[in-house]
Amino acid sequence: NLSGRLVTVLLILLAAALIWLAINSWVDYRLNPDYGSIPTARETTLLALARNAAIIALIILTLMFTLSELGLNIGPLIASAGVLGLAIGFGAQKLVQDIITGVFIQFDNAMNVGDVVSVGGTSGVVEKLTVRSVSLRDLNGTYHIIPFSSVDMVSNFMRDFAYHLADMGIAYREDTDEARKAMFDAFDELMKDPEHSPTIIGELEWFGLQSLGDSAVVLRARIKTLPGKQWGVGRAYNGLIKRIFDERGIEIPFPHRTIYLGESKSG
Amino acid sequence: NLSGRLVTVLLILLAAALIWLAINSWVDYRLNPDYGSIPTARETTLLALARNAAIIALIILTLMFTLSELGLNIGPLIASAGVLGLAIGFGAQKLVQDIITGVFIQFDNAMNVGDVVSVGGTSGVVEKLTVRSVSLRDLNGTYHIIPFSSVDMVSNFMRDFAYHLADMGIAYREDTDEARKAMFDAFDELMKDPEHSPTIIGELEWFGLQSLGDSAVVLRARIKTLPGKQWGVGRAYNGLIKRIFDERGIEIPFPHRTIYLGESKSG
Amino acid sequence: NLSGRLVTVLLILLAAALIWLAINSWVDYRLNPDYGSIPTARETTLLALARNAAIIALIILTLMFTLSELGLNIGPLIASAGVLGLAIGFGAQKLVQDIITGVFIQFDNAMNVGDVVSVGGTSGVVEKLTVRSVSLRDLNGTYHIIPFSSVDMVSNFMRDFAYHLADMGIAYREDTDEARKAMFDAFDELMKDPEHSPTIIGELEWFGLQSLGDSAVVLRARIKTLPGKQWGVGRAYNGLIKRIFDERGIEIPFPHRTIYLGESKSG
Amino acid sequence: NLSGRLVTVLLILLAAALIWLAINSWVDYRLNPDYGSIPTARETTLLALARNAAIIALIILTLMFTLSELGLNIGPLIASAGVLGLAIGFGAQKLVQDIITGVFIQFDNAMNVGDVVSVGGTSGVVEKLTVRSVSLRDLNGTYHIIPFSSVDMVSNFMRDFAYHLADMGIAYREDTDEARKAMFDAFDELMKDPEHSPTIIGELEWFGLQSLGDSAVVLRARIKTLPGKQWGVGRAYNGLIKRIFDERGIEIPFPHRTIYLGESKSG
Amino acid sequence: NLSGRLVTVLLILLAAALIWLAINSWVDYRLNPDYGSIPTARETTLLALARNAAIIALIILTLMFTLSELGLNIGPLIASAGVLGLAIGFGAQKLVQDIITGVFIQFDNAMNVGDVVSVGGTSGVVEKLTVRSVSLRDLNGTYHIIPFSSVDMVSNFMRDFAYHLADMGIAYREDTDEARKAMFDAFDELMKDPEHSPTIIGELEWFGLQSLGDSAVVLRARIKTLPGKQWGVGRAYNGLIKRIFDERGIEIPFPHRTIYLGESKSG
Amino acid sequence: NLSGRLVTVLLILLAAALIWLAINSWVDYRLNPDYGSIPTARETTLLALARNAAIIALIILTLMFTLSELGLNIGPLIASAGVLGLAIGFGAQKLVQDIITGVFIQFDNAMNVGDVVSVGGTSGVVEKLTVRSVSLRDLNGTYHIIPFSSVDMVSNFMRDFAYHLADMGIAYREDTDEARKAMFDAFDELMKDPEHSPTIIGELEWFGLQSLGDSAVVLRARIKTLPGKQWGVGRAYNGLIKRIFDERGIEIPFPHRTIYLGESKSG
Amino acid sequence: NLSGRLVTVLLILLAAALIWLAINSWVDYRLNPDYGSIPTARETTLLALARNAAIIALIILTLMFTLSELGLNIGPLIASAGVLGLAIGFGAQKLVQDIITGVFIQFDNAMNVGDVVSVGGTSGVVEKLTVRSVSLRDLNGTYHIIPFSSVDMVSNFMRDFAYHLADMGIAYREDTDEARKAMFDAFDELMKDPEHSPTIIGELEWFGLQSLGDSAVVLRARIKTLPGKQWGVGRAYNGLIKRIFDERGIEIPFPHRTIYLGESKSG
Repeated sequence: NLSGRLVTVLLILLAAALIWLAINSWVDYRLNPDYGSIPTARETTLLALARNAAIIALIILTLMFTLSELGLNIGPLIASAGVLGLAIGFGAQKLVQDIITGVFIQFDNAMNVGDVVSVGGTSGVVEKLTVRSVSLRDLNGTYHIIPFSSVDMVSNFMRDFAYHLADMGIAYREDTDEARKAMFDAFDELMKDPEHSPTIIGELEWFGLQSLGDSAVVLRARIKTLPGKQWGVGRAYNGLIKRIFDERGIEIPFPHRTIYLGESKSG
Repeated sequence: NLSGRLVTVLLILLAAALIWLAINSWVDYRLNPDYGSIPTARETTLLALARNAAIIALIILTLMFTLSELGLNIGPLIASAGVLGLAIGFGAQKLVQDIITGVFIQFDNAMNVGDVVSVGGTSGVVEKLTVRSVSLRDLNGTYHIIPFSSVDMVSNFMRDFAYHLADMGIAYREDTDEARKAMFDAFDELMKDPEHSPTIIGELEWFGLQSLGDSAVVLRARIKTLPGKQWGVGRAYNGLIKRIFDERGIEIPFPHRTIYLGESKSG
Repeated sequence: NLSGRLVTVLLILLAAALIWLAINSWVDYRLNPDYGSIPTARETTLLALARNAAIIALIILTLMFTLSELGLNIGPLIASAGVLGLAIGFGAQKLVQDIITGVFIQFDNAMNVGDVVSVGGTSGVVEKLTVRSVSLRDLNGTYHIIPFSSVDMVSNFMRDFAYHLADMGIAYREDTDEARKAMFDAFDELMKDPEHSPTIIGELEWFGLQSLGDSAVVLRARIKTLPGKQWGVGRAYNGLIKRIFDERGIEIPFPHRTIYLGESKSG
Repeated sequence: NLSGRLVTVLLILLAAALIWLAINSWVDYRLNPDYGSIPTARETTLLALARNAAIIALIILTLMFTLSELGLNIGPLIASAGVLGLAIGFGAQKLVQDIITGVFIQFDNAMNVGDVVSVGGTSGVVEKLTVRSVSLRDLNGTYHIIPFSSVDMVSNFMRDFAYHLADMGIAYREDTDEARKAMFDAFDELMKDPEHSPTIIGELEWFGLQSLGDSAVVLRARIKTLPGKQWGVGRAYNGLIKRIFDERGIEIPFPHRTIYLGESKSG
Repeated sequence: NLSGRLVTVLLILLAAALIWLAINSWVDYRLNPDYGSIPTARETTLLALARNAAIIALIILTLMFTLSELGLNIGPLIASAGVLGLAIGFGAQKLVQDIITGVFIQFDNAMNVGDVVSVGGTSGVVEKLTVRSVSLRDLNGTYHIIPFSSVDMVSNFMRDFAYHLADMGIAYREDTDEARKAMFDAFDELMKDPEHSPTIIGELEWFGLQSLGDSAVVLRARIKTLPGKQWGVGRAYNGLIKRIFDERGIEIPFPHRTIYLGESKSG
Repeated sequence: NLSGRLVTVLLILLAAALIWLAINSWVDYRLNPDYGSIPTARETTLLALARNAAIIALIILTLMFTLSELGLNIGPLIASAGVLGLAIGFGAQKLVQDIITGVFIQFDNAMNVGDVVSVGGTSGVVEKLTVRSVSLRDLNGTYHIIPFSSVDMVSNFMRDFAYHLADMGIAYREDTDEARKAMFDAFDELMKDPEHSPTIIGELEWFGLQSLGDSAVVLRARIKTLPGKQWGVGRAYNGLIKRIFDERGIEIPFPHRTIYLGESKSG
Repeated sequence: NLSGRLVTVLLILLAAALIWLAINSWVDYRLNPDYGSIPTARETTLLALARNAAIIALIILTLMFTLSELGLNIGPLIASAGVLGLAIGFGAQKLVQDIITGVFIQFDNAMNVGDVVSVGGTSGVVEKLTVRSVSLRDLNGTYHIIPFSSVDMVSNFMRDFAYHLADMGIAYREDTDEARKAMFDAFDELMKDPEHSPTIIGELEWFGLQSLGDSAVVLRARIKTLPGKQWGVGRAYNGLIKRIFDERGIEIPFPHRTIYLGESKSG
């Protein structure tokens, strides 16, 4: 009986060792650039995570089966683990959520280092990406570390292409056709700028008279650019618009108000 | 006894293999355009999900029954799984919710690639639709990945038909009938526009004097269009309204204020 | 022993088949217009839901009792189900909540297809009503699918009758009795309108001087209408009020401000 | 052994039948106006709820004990119920909360049909009161169904008595004693009104100079009325105040602003 | 064996009866004014709650032990109770929280009937205090029933003493020392008022020039009063300040604005 | 067997009595000022809490082991406790959280009676500190009882030292160097004030031109004071600034606005 | 049998003692600067935490195995612990979350004592960092203790480098090129300042015309500085900009408004 148990234990340990070896070998093989393609940062992160998870599971199971086969009453161990699991499970849910969300963000390739993204209400350049959190550097140079459990929506400003959306408010007394022509002329001039012209990948997209606002008539147009170039193009276009509108006397209105002077009922 | 166990194990494995085969065959048959209709993207997504779920369940059950029949004490395994389930269950609830909501969104056909929708406070064109998340491209070209657990209400702007709702504020001193006539004339002119006329699928729906606001009397009318054409039609209608109101001298008011000059009690 | 078990299994299967038959027959009988009244859409939805729930429960129980009687150790099955239930229970709570709320909304007859309702902050006409969600079409033609778990309060604008509440702000310098008379005259004129008169089901309900506001004295009155007609009646009444107030020179005030010119202490 | 079991089962069924009979008889007795007082709507609701709960519990227990005594292994049944309880418990918590809160609202007599209340941010007249929800009809005739789980605080505007709180803002240049006198005179006149006088159940409660605001000095007074009459009395009082203030030239101020003209440092 | 069991059952029932007797006697003794001090409302509430809790626990335990000793398989009972506990536990958590918070509010003596308090965002006079909720009557006579689970912070306006905090804004052109003197003079006059003087329990506490605001210099002082008298004293002090400031020509400023007239670059 | 059990029970009871004695003795020893230092209020609170927790645990364990050794089936007891624990655990989580947070606030010495703190959005002087809640008296004399579960961040205004932060807005037309000199002169004068000078523990810390605002240029400086003296010093400094700015004619600006008069396109 | 048990117990105790010794030795060795590098504050915190966790686990397990081997029925102990774990687990989740988040913040080196950070909406200098909370001192000298469970995002203002972002609004009537030149001249002058020049680590980064706002044209530029120096550099740059703009007559605009005088329709 005892010898049978010892044999079982040895078999369990042997099986565990073999599985350990298999996991490690497979991960090393996958991460080895000599066999197949060079692994991306994404693959490295996910494989390292998978290996850690597999080995922790292996250790726990081996330990439990071994103790159990040795005839030790592992009831107390399991009970302790259960209570512990209960007590910690509630507190750790954010961590588990971090990792689950992180795995999917890596799988979906939702963002890469160098992208400008907006996550959890904060925007910036991605500086570092782990399976638990993302680190952003914003425009002021502030460094934000955001765990993925605080991330619902990932907004990537640099996927494939981008737009500069030009919503120009002009005064009600102006002619909209004249303003339209000015916006097209500004775009033509922008296309002659050697700095910005190569980053623009389409004609000016004209939408029309977007709304009749409180103090301004809003005209909308859009410029398609390379990803990440929308802000530079936008600022250059703003500058040209300002100059051309000034030259042609097209008013960009301040907030307006119409004043009536109150008088008594009798006049 | 031992041989009986081995037979049981073999039977279990055989049953598992047969079930595996059956599931795979059925899914392949359903996805095969040669037998019946060509499967939609929706069907492909849902069948793939169902197959994965069924096969994971099959593997876990087969493993457990096999170990159990082999006489191994699977108590530790189950206990570990229980504690693990507890610890992970809390963190994974968002993922489960993602998938459950995703399945229902696919079933309800709530949105399709190419639709303009608003989910979780963000609007855009649907670029990609998985069982866990939806990817939107908004007007600025920003790419949003939104997990379904953040989605309560799906608002689809392109279901069957759409409306342009025209809420025109005119000054109190204007005649509402004259403004009404102007809005109908603008609609008539719009119907002569070869670009927009084919996308309009009904007469101008006249509501009337919607409200007596702070500075403006608001007139409401509505134009029925093909889905996705409401914005273009709206902008064209805005342009016509602006021109006709200018021609006829109907004022679109700035915010008004009546000023009284304060004076002492004695006058 | 074995034969006893087989007999038990057969009895279990027989009992299950009988219960299945009973459930199906009863539901078919209830949904059959030949026996009793024609079932409403509500009854059809609820009976279908009840039948599905009953049959799923029946299958699970039959399976478990059968396996148990066959002497198979169903411990692993139950344990897996328990862990699964735990892991999924958290994520599925919204779905369960959807269905429970849906059942009660159907029972309470809280809304019907065609009603204008407001649920979860969104208003529109009910286009479709399932046991899990409601689909609304709003004024802009946007189609909203709202799961019931996002619905706390159901506000139905078309239950039995409706009101147009007229809160008219008039200038402080006006005589409130004159304005009151104008509002009654507008109502009399409205009652002569062949379009709106049949939808009004009561006299003008006069409340009085509701408040002394910042720039206006607010008079409140109310018109009782057929359900769904309150908006049309309200717009017609607004138009009449505007015309009569203009004719009689009763001012609907813009926001007022009293200006004092600052001066130094010495005057 | 078998016969002993059958006897036990029979005894269980007999006990269950007796308990059922007892519950039903007691509830019927309590609801029977011939024996004791006529039951209120509240008692009817609560007794019906209690009877349903008791009978469901009775059926479940009888079923379980019977199956158990018959020697059937009810482990699967209990396990299924446990997993089901787990999966549903999360989703049904709102329903349980509805009913628990509903029972206490009935016990506390917090609102009755016909009361004007404010629950969960919505105000209106109570039209219907079940153990799960309250139905309100608001001023616009909209019908709101609010489950009790959305109800934290119940605000009842019609408990025992009510007040009209008059916060009158007068211009800084006015004499507060003169305004105080005007407010008392308006109250005296109100007490002569045969419509409102019977609903007023106390003298004008004078508080004094409540605050020195941005543009107005606020005087506060209060009128005690019968429950539900505070709005009518308030509007009548507003009308009288407006007339008397106009007659005596006491200014109710518009928002004020003091303007300084900017000048350069040198003057 | 059977007789032993019966003896055990009898002993259990006897023990239960004795414990019941002991609990009841002790509570009656504590609530009996003949033995010791007269119990406060707080003691009565807490003791009644404790007795109910103890007796419910006693009944459940006695029932379970008795059934268990009688040889009945109470597994089904416990399982049902477990599933029930699970299903209800989620929904009832607000009720349990109500009672736990209620017990602590009673223990801490956080509020008494007649106090003016602010709980859960609502202020009013406490009219009724149970172990589950508090009932407030606000200034408008509205009656609010607030369960304690909605109560985080209890703010009691009538603990030991109170303050009227006087934040007086005066114009920038005024002399702060003159205004300070006026505020002290107003306090001296207030101390001569036979109505308010007895409720003031300290000198005017002078803080100084609190802030240099947009349009006003704010001076802060404070008057210590008996609890509940702070509002009356404050209104009286406001009245005196208004009169004295008017007499001495100290300006309480309206919102200020400095206006520059825009001109073109060339002047 | 029976005698062995009785011996075991006696041993258990003896062990429990000894542990009880040990706990009590140790706590008494620690709280006894004769042996070692006088215990702080913090130590007293924490030791009393620890003793209560230890003794409750001791009683429960002793009871359970005793009953178990006496051969009573304590299954029902444990099951009841489990269901009870489940049902109450949800409701009591706020209480447990109160105590855990309270223990850490005591350990961290985060606040002491007499400190001015801000917790859960409410500021005031700490009047009482228990292991479950903190009682604050705010500036108006209102007494707030705040359970620690509502406390995330503790902000202590009286730790070691404090600052008065002076953000002075001056008009754009003023010279910033002149204003800087005035602020330093005001500080020099403040240092001559015998009341405030001893509470200032550093030179005026000059930051510079903080921002170019809408209507004002903001200059920032800071004064280091003893804890709790920052408000008095700040008010005195405000008074001096106001006087010196008035003397030297440095303008503290009202909100500015530049007005353009609208004209038609033609001029 | 008994002696075998005693031997097992002794072995268990011996193993526990050895493990204890090993843990302590290893931690001491790691923290001993003689062997290897000097441990950072971070290492000290994490190792102390790990040691405490390991030793608590060791004590609990040793106790349980010992009792179990001694033949004592530890069922009651485990059951008590389970119910306790349940009851406390809910309340303690914030504490567990504090520690888990704290461990990761230490691992990620997200902040160090002396850094200026923003966590949970509060900004300040880190004064103390434990595994459960961070203590910040803000600009007013207020001391905030923030548990990590309230911390989602850590924003570190002092990572590697920082920026001063200069968003200058100039009047519409100004020439943007002139303003651009003024901003570069101000930067050149700043680089000659011996105090700030060494802290600037790059040229002025020019972005361009950021937006055409309501009253101002916004120009954006950025200065790269050493970490923590961005505020000082920014204030100095503000001062220079103000002086140069004043000298050159470039207007920093107040909010603008265009006023139209209302007139009747007839003119």
